[in-house]
Amino acid sequence: MRCTFCEKEAVLRLRHANLRLCPEHLVARVEKEAEKAIREFHMFTPEEKILVAVSGGKDSLGLWQILTKLGYQADGLYIDLGIAGYSERSQGFCEAFARERGLTLHVLRLKEELGAGLDEIAQVMHGEPCSHCGTIKRYLMNRAAIDGGYAALATGHNLDDEAATLLGNVLQWNLEYLARQYPVLPEGRKLARKVKPLIYVSEREMVAYCLISGIRYIYEECPHSVGARSLFLKQILNELEDEAPSTKISFVKGFLRAHHIFPKAEETELRDCPVCGMPTTASGPCRFCRIRERMKHYAPA
Amino acid sequence: MRCTFCEKEAVLRLRHANLRLCPEHLVARVEKEAEKAIREFHMFTPEEKILVAVSGGKDSLGLWQILTKLGYQADGLYIDLGIAGYSERSQGFCEAFARERGLTLHVLRLKEELGAGLDEIAQVMHGEPCSHCGTIKRYLMNRAAIDGGYAALATGHNLDDEAATLLGNVLQWNLEYLARQYPVLPEGRKLARKVKPLIYVSEREMVAYCLISGIRYIYEECPHSVGARSLFLKQILNELEDEAPSTKISFVKGFLRAHHIFPKAEETELRDCPVCGMPTTASGPCRFCRIRERMKHYAPA
Repeated sequence: MRCTFCEKEAVLRLRHANLRLCPEHLVARVEKEAEKAIREFHMFTPEEKILVAVSGGKDSLGLWQILTKLGYQADGLYIDLGIAGYSERSQGFCEAFARERGLTLHVLRLKEELGAGLDEIAQVMHGEPCSHCGTIKRYLMNRAAIDGGYAALATGHNLDDEAATLLGNVLQWNLEYLARQYPVLPEGRKLARKVKPLIYVSEREMVAYCLISGIRYIYEECPHSVGARSLFLKQILNELEDEAPSTKISFVKGFLRAHHIFPKAEETELRDCPVCGMPTTASGPCRFCRIRERMKHYAPA
Repeated sequence: MRCTFCEKEAVLRLRHANLRLCPEHLVARVEKEAEKAIREFHMFTPEEKILVAVSGGKDSLGLWQILTKLGYQADGLYIDLGIAGYSERSQGFCEAFARERGLTLHVLRLKEELGAGLDEIAQVMHGEPCSHCGTIKRYLMNRAAIDGGYAALATGHNLDDEAATLLGNVLQWNLEYLARQYPVLPEGRKLARKVKPLIYVSEREMVAYCLISGIRYIYEECPHSVGARSLFLKQILNELEDEAPSTKISFVKGFLRAHHIFPKAEETELRDCPVCGMPTTASGPCRFCRIRERMKHYAPA
């Protein structure tokens, strides 16, 4: 199988893009697709400082590499969630990545922020651990971007992630979530701009990108994500893609074209959380502070 | 397993509705769900004459039975598509159903209308046979309803059908199709009102309804539908339903609630087809007349 663009042997076939790519052209394509999304959605400019949320996985470390290579000023943020046997290893990959490339990595620790890690939260709090983890990460990422004076917070959500989230939102016709699902969410008072430069890049491309670029990353999924609905929806989308290649990219691109039909939520008035001062829709303390309060109460002395 | 409503043994468990039903209560539920949809969407009244498009399958014959039992005035329309070994048998089931109940069944034959059946059309015409068949059936059903002075044309699309169509439309974000996907489409000049009273009733319920009601119907799928995308999408939705019961009903009901956000297509100007006089968006002959012209040319003498 020969590369679509040169004489070299192709290592990846992308049926949805009708391409066969050698290592060099795969790297070029992934970087080009990221740059395309950055420009199309006016995510940020080379003059702006960006904070990349890194988990130690392929997508976020790959994104950091891409942004750096494309000439953007990107620092990293790692949140140590306190997941036994998983967080230490993820952090190791992030630190090695930053050290080898001379990049700046900020680290926040859940145990310092909340007095407890996700393992304890999963035991104590009702509901899905992934849901609490999402609240916590969004809070800390936003605060870090605001406090650090970054122009935008970038996350490594790829095409498969976006398609799975979209399918979940569409199956329930959650109009509020659909209106908010977009590759760039503008900044607000104490709210950082959020951007997803990898929306056009598939999971398979990111795996290949990291392997070719020599990026070492954590392979395992988070132990709390076992049986998570998002993984099930990804599997469903893979079946659809097998039957009709380009299902995922058409689904996501078609949604982005149709996005204007989703009614913008009323500008919900944001108050300052009486505990931490960050913006919240709640009338009392924000969700993050409520988790902290709950964990203070339940944590072993 | 006992019926949710009485002491009898249940024969069907509906996880999505959290019900276990004996034969009698299953029949009652199916008829109630149909009546609910008829009223909710103002489909028709007991004073109006309805034409039910029957294929010989469980959904359309079941629908005819339901409408008759609910006190509506419903005649049947069978279109003989000229599919060898399939059309004869389907017609037999429709005729037996009508005869046993003293109901009126109209029959149209593709070979008389077009000079050819679907088997020949599938051989001669490019594209999916299901697509041509859809064009032809929509045309003939509409014409029959208009010519017969019926207030509405009812089809047996059930919850599974609607969910599969919806998934296909949403995966492509086909806004025009999404705007037109609704349980009732109002009448227009030479256009019959179209209604789908079974949108809230699942395939499994219709199978059980027919078995319990002693309705004999054709089990096989149309031979041309093998590998059809709609069947694949139904299988995908069944996987989603297995994982989270009520996925289909939430998907369809949520869509109906959100339906107002889909921009109504511009009132496309309909002209009269220069050949048959029926309304069409085409500038020349309508699609039906073009198929007829094409088949005239290609049919063996």
